[in-house]
Amino acid sequence: MNREENIGNELDIENEEFVALLSKRVNTTSQIAIVGSNICPIESLDYEIVENELFKQDWRSRKKVEIFQYVILKWAFALLIGLFTGLVGIFNNIAVENLSGFKLLMTTNLMIQHKYFKAFAAFAGCNVVFAAAAAALCAFIAPAAAGSGIPEVKAYLNGVDAYSILAPGTLFVKIFGSVLGVSAGFVVGKEGPMVHTGACIASILGQGGSRKYHLTWKWLRYFKNDRDRRDLITCGAAAGVAAAFRAPVGGVLFALEEAASWWRSALLWRTFFTTAVVAIVLRAFIQLCSTGRCGLFGEGGLIMYDVSAAAARYSGSDILAVILLGTIGGIFGSLYNYLVDKVLRVYSILNQKGAAFKVCLVIIISLLTSCCAYGLPWLATCIPCPTDESISCPNTDKSGNYKSFQCPPGYYNDLASLFLNTNDDAIRNLMSTSTVKEFHIYTLFIFFAAVFCLGIITYGIAIPSGLFIPVILAGACYGRLVGRLFETISKLDAGLFALLGAASFLGGTMRMTVSLCVILLELTNDLLLLPLVMLVLLISKSVADIFNKGVYDQIVKLKGFPYLEAHAEPYMKQLVALDVVSGPLITFSGIEKVGNILHALRTTGHNGFPVIDDPPLSDAPELCGIVLRSHLLVLLKGKAFSKDRIFAGEEIFHRFAVFDFAKAGSGKGIKVEDLDIEEEEMDMYIDLHPITNTSPYMVVETMSLAKAAILFRQLGLRHMCVVPKSQGRPPIVGILTRHDFMPEHILGLYPHIKPHKYNFDYCWLFVFCLPSVLFLVVDD
Amino acid sequence: MNREENIGNELDIENEEFVALLSKRVNTTSQIAIVGSNICPIESLDYEIVENELFKQDWRSRKKVEIFQYVILKWAFALLIGLFTGLVGIFNNIAVENLSGFKLLMTTNLMIQHKYFKAFAAFAGCNVVFAAAAAALCAFIAPAAAGSGIPEVKAYLNGVDAYSILAPGTLFVKIFGSVLGVSAGFVVGKEGPMVHTGACIASILGQGGSRKYHLTWKWLRYFKNDRDRRDLITCGAAAGVAAAFRAPVGGVLFALEEAASWWRSALLWRTFFTTAVVAIVLRAFIQLCSTGRCGLFGEGGLIMYDVSAAAARYSGSDILAVILLGTIGGIFGSLYNYLVDKVLRVYSILNQKGAAFKVCLVIIISLLTSCCAYGLPWLATCIPCPTDESISCPNTDKSGNYKSFQCPPGYYNDLASLFLNTNDDAIRNLMSTSTVKEFHIYTLFIFFAAVFCLGIITYGIAIPSGLFIPVILAGACYGRLVGRLFETISKLDAGLFALLGAASFLGGTMRMTVSLCVILLELTNDLLLLPLVMLVLLISKSVADIFNKGVYDQIVKLKGFPYLEAHAEPYMKQLVALDVVSGPLITFSGIEKVGNILHALRTTGHNGFPVIDDPPLSDAPELCGIVLRSHLLVLLKGKAFSKDRIFAGEEIFHRFAVFDFAKAGSGKGIKVEDLDIEEEEMDMYIDLHPITNTSPYMVVETMSLAKAAILFRQLGLRHMCVVPKSQGRPPIVGILTRHDFMPEHILGLYPHIKPHKYNFDYCWLFVFCLPSVLFLVVDD
Repeated sequence: MNREENIGNELDIENEEFVALLSKRVNTTSQIAIVGSNICPIESLDYEIVENELFKQDWRSRKKVEIFQYVILKWAFALLIGLFTGLVGIFNNIAVENLSGFKLLMTTNLMIQHKYFKAFAAFAGCNVVFAAAAAALCAFIAPAAAGSGIPEVKAYLNGVDAYSILAPGTLFVKIFGSVLGVSAGFVVGKEGPMVHTGACIASILGQGGSRKYHLTWKWLRYFKNDRDRRDLITCGAAAGVAAAFRAPVGGVLFALEEAASWWRSALLWRTFFTTAVVAIVLRAFIQLCSTGRCGLFGEGGLIMYDVSAAAARYSGSDILAVILLGTIGGIFGSLYNYLVDKVLRVYSILNQKGAAFKVCLVIIISLLTSCCAYGLPWLATCIPCPTDESISCPNTDKSGNYKSFQCPPGYYNDLASLFLNTNDDAIRNLMSTSTVKEFHIYTLFIFFAAVFCLGIITYGIAIPSGLFIPVILAGACYGRLVGRLFETISKLDAGLFALLGAASFLGGTMRMTVSLCVILLELTNDLLLLPLVMLVLLISKSVADIFNKGVYDQIVKLKGFPYLEAHAEPYMKQLVALDVVSGPLITFSGIEKVGNILHALRTTGHNGFPVIDDPPLSDAPELCGIVLRSHLLVLLKGKAFSKDRIFAGEEIFHRFAVFDFAKAGSGKGIKVEDLDIEEEEMDMYIDLHPITNTSPYMVVETMSLAKAAILFRQLGLRHMCVVPKSQGRPPIVGILTRHDFMPEHILGLYPHIKPHKYNFDYCWLFVFCLPSVLFLVVDD
Repeated sequence: MNREENIGNELDIENEEFVALLSKRVNTTSQIAIVGSNICPIESLDYEIVENELFKQDWRSRKKVEIFQYVILKWAFALLIGLFTGLVGIFNNIAVENLSGFKLLMTTNLMIQHKYFKAFAAFAGCNVVFAAAAAALCAFIAPAAAGSGIPEVKAYLNGVDAYSILAPGTLFVKIFGSVLGVSAGFVVGKEGPMVHTGACIASILGQGGSRKYHLTWKWLRYFKNDRDRRDLITCGAAAGVAAAFRAPVGGVLFALEEAASWWRSALLWRTFFTTAVVAIVLRAFIQLCSTGRCGLFGEGGLIMYDVSAAAARYSGSDILAVILLGTIGGIFGSLYNYLVDKVLRVYSILNQKGAAFKVCLVIIISLLTSCCAYGLPWLATCIPCPTDESISCPNTDKSGNYKSFQCPPGYYNDLASLFLNTNDDAIRNLMSTSTVKEFHIYTLFIFFAAVFCLGIITYGIAIPSGLFIPVILAGACYGRLVGRLFETISKLDAGLFALLGAASFLGGTMRMTVSLCVILLELTNDLLLLPLVMLVLLISKSVADIFNKGVYDQIVKLKGFPYLEAHAEPYMKQLVALDVVSGPLITFSGIEKVGNILHALRTTGHNGFPVIDDPPLSDAPELCGIVLRSHLLVLLKGKAFSKDRIFAGEEIFHRFAVFDFAKAGSGKGIKVEDLDIEEEEMDMYIDLHPITNTSPYMVVETMSLAKAAILFRQLGLRHMCVVPKSQGRPPIVGILTRHDFMPEHILGLYPHIKPHKYNFDYCWLFVFCLPSVLFLVVDD
């Protein structure tokens, strides 16, 4: 810096401004970031290749064998992610089936002996114990493991790293918390947590184990950057879905449609390999377990609903019923999202009061769930068993269609068949074909109301809780209900109606299309249903899109993650890049004083600093590039100082390797507080050229903000330089980061801009009338 | 321009240099662009939003109703594309089944009467007539309709518009030529052409009809830009696959994995809607045709191979057979690609000799095919019919498993069952389950050899010819052959082996994974096969990738399309943007003389010109933006001239609307020759500011070429400005276009750079050994 004389003063001013700006920014974001028991520090990820001198030198000397190692490792990781995720999936299922099977069998046995109060005590007691254990794990060990985890993975793949979201502790709690939570009979799924689990496994593998637990492999240095980690975590998310639903293709598509913000065709192939490994692992273990070696697992577990027994012929009147289902699904879906959002806001306030409070909340919800599950079946009247000999009714198995409950022999309680089962089995019962009259209409109605409400109040408590199963459960229930109501008009099987209902509710809450369609097809193993499932998904998504956003998008927003949308907002076309540049710009000279750097690092939270070559280093001030905080810290820690302003490239090449600058796992890098700089070193110089990224992406200040946003988003940047249009001014006018593109920030700066967002995507519903009419005409 | 005094001279020099450069570039590209009977002009597409003053003004005044119109139209287009593509798919199938059914029935009838020569004459005669008709259509009306069309669509979606590739004439010839070609008994498919057909339909709809045939809708102006056209054509390609294979999800995935270079999640949804419409249309018509109202269609047609009858249980030894199949598929696949490439090079020389020559070539190949199809079955011995009563054997239907041919009653000729059928029916026969002994091993061998060779020499002749069917046919054949050989070891059904063989050969030639997997599953309607199909695809793709590229990539390269790869080549890291800037830079002043502009337009082929504001328009020369040739031509045609150097913004806003500058369909814009500028107008001035895109993407000259390439590719640019690093120089040093990133260009400039491309992606095969071993261990 050739403005050394007033640097102290200048920095003070900058600092004050910065604090003011920071507080302002906190104000704008505080409105959205109200969730999260402990406000977690968020860090942006950087997918740009840092092309500094060190990198270039290393790249030039890279040997063929190193590239070979890298590729082998890449595929080995894909394999290991698939393997471990598959194993965890199997473990989850075996554990859940055995725990909840034990609980349900005990309850049923007591019921048969007419010890109704003891039965309730055993049922509710087991539930509360499991729930409390899950909550304690979650509240005391890893709060980040609460919830579905899909929003966090989605945010990570968008470039937002929330603190400890992929840490080993989170993984541990996610696995065991999910098992306990599902076994506790909550209306939650283990599918969302599986996605998070897959992502955690991928992240931990990619980081080369956990330094905290002394499990690291040093030769994994190639993967110590955000780009490769992103790829691994994408594979992990896909593997999670594949393991949860036994849907390998669905897993790939889920990663593509919902999870990932960036996609390359090379990744498609690797993800596909990962999910193929998952499929093989699952198949091997299912074959193993079918011989009865896995306890109670093997009878139920690993959801797979076979509706192929039902004829898939459908005619015009069925289509009408399906359109109705889609519409209902859209309305219920958006209502569900709205209520989940409200409940989450309330819970986030409650959860902030401490870990003990969290556990209490979980226990209350658990008791409520137990009361519903045990109490509501008393409302149902006993139904005589069907005369079909092949059906065991009433049965006392863990998973069974016809639960006896309080009924006399020869009768069954249809509501108990739904409530006193695992969620997987309840869904299987709802989707069972050729059993039209099994469930009474009122039963379905009561169950739907209970599951809908319980699902809403359960998500957000401090246990790992997936959203898929509650949604499928409620959807299948009203689907079957509609089927019952349309009995006279439509010839479709009630089981198919349940499937289509589940599809419609999934479409209405999650707003995915292709991936849900494939997942459902892989679950039900019947491709002939494809047109119906597509139809119902398209309608429910469109209807729901009129009202609000998808549930995962809502949670991402609620958690305050600065999520970058794929498209630029329309109002950005009215602004230019300079308009949103905020804050004081702190630049370094190519050879800078240690004291200045240290001061800048200490007083700001910036992660990238422009480096400017001033005379005599160049003829006129010119932008040399950007230097990263983490790289500066490595240089400072290594004390690569010199007494004079000289180029120290050779020395730095000698003393540092490119992997010394590799990005550590989140929260594991060097911190400013770790530095130990002596007083006399403060006046020494440090040559920044070797670590300066000389190819930063830049835009001119008059660049339309919309186009700058597209550049930023498409390339996955963390910093973007804004350069002046005219000559004779300093060579850089500001740096744009993710936060500068957030609607809250921009609209805070320019309150007069109206972000009229027309969402006309439901228009296709009008357009859609045509083919339906055509279909009806042709068909009849 | 303030360098008016020497402009003439300067431009002359530039022109000479440009011609030299052009010839050099032609030299480098001529090595690759040897295919194509008439060297077709190639134009780059531009996905950048041209944010000039006119656009901004229009955008600000855009009304809500216009956005509504746009969205409605978008969905209406998706609907119409699905509708029309579905209808064309149905038409194709009905026409083919009837034409070739007529031919085959006639032949069979003559055979039954032992009139063998008459039968051959009828068979070969029909074939030659159909073939000659297809070739004549192709050679005289639309040469662009020859071949599969998928490479061209792929190139278009990458940003390369080849002349008339999506024109109405091409569509017409593609549909009828494909029907005739397939009916002529060639070893070609109608699936590839269906993709091209879908893309053509989308393009023509998006262009608002054809101006040539006076079919235009004026209110479609919103879609007159490359971005919206790209989206439509992506939908069209997906619809084509969906219609060809009755695979709606497969269609979406095909568009995503193989066809599209850019993808947005919004597109996923719209594509999905399009393919859903296709599925509905197909289903409606199949239901209609099942009553016999479509002639011979209904018995066969619209490929759907049902292998679900075969048990999908498999054990370790089956996996070994499958791994072997995958390896064979990879080797045959790469061999196939190699041979197709060689044959295409020979044909391209032959085809250049004229349209008549093309037709002759087609007739020769047709005769050869007829001789094979009619001659080779004589080599087969007659096989006694199976004793099963339910099978009609020998049968005389159009499509049947057991053709009598020359055999006495009670016997059938298994080779004739394959040769004297449509390709679809032959595949169905090969994949038929529970008929292990139906085909003799020698029969399968002969048929495989014939189909493999015929497939290679048929692709490239002047008829629309798909690659899917030849590949599936050959693959199913050797799959069944391997099944027969492994009879004693593997318990998998021969039909399943045929399916897996087809998968392996598809993987080996086309190198797709997920989309092929889903297409095959949708074709066979058996999800339990998923792990096996995944395995075989992964192995065959990896094995084949060791040797060469996918067949479509090869053809794209052979046709000389400047296809931009998704990743930057490694050697680009050694270069900076300035290193590849080529050619003379022609810049305009903000208010420029008409004569200068006209001269530049006439003497160069450039499509974008930087606009520089010199004093007195600004304090120092500064880059104002980029102006496009097409926009300049509109201004010149409209004669928006002024006598003095004055800002004419208001006048231009008054006289021109933004849609006057909308991009016309390919080859339909104003040309320089269309202009009629008087001598005195040459000295007048024209204000370029209103049409200058003031937000061009730019990189600094020292930007690493690899990162510049990523920027260029990710954002789908046509022009990228290279600006100087230091101040005091002209504000722009060059423009990069697609050609500057081509390996041929860069390696031509820097011959010392060795593009060592390590392809280690087959590494996963080693990695893969682990789970196979695990699987075998667990399984047995």
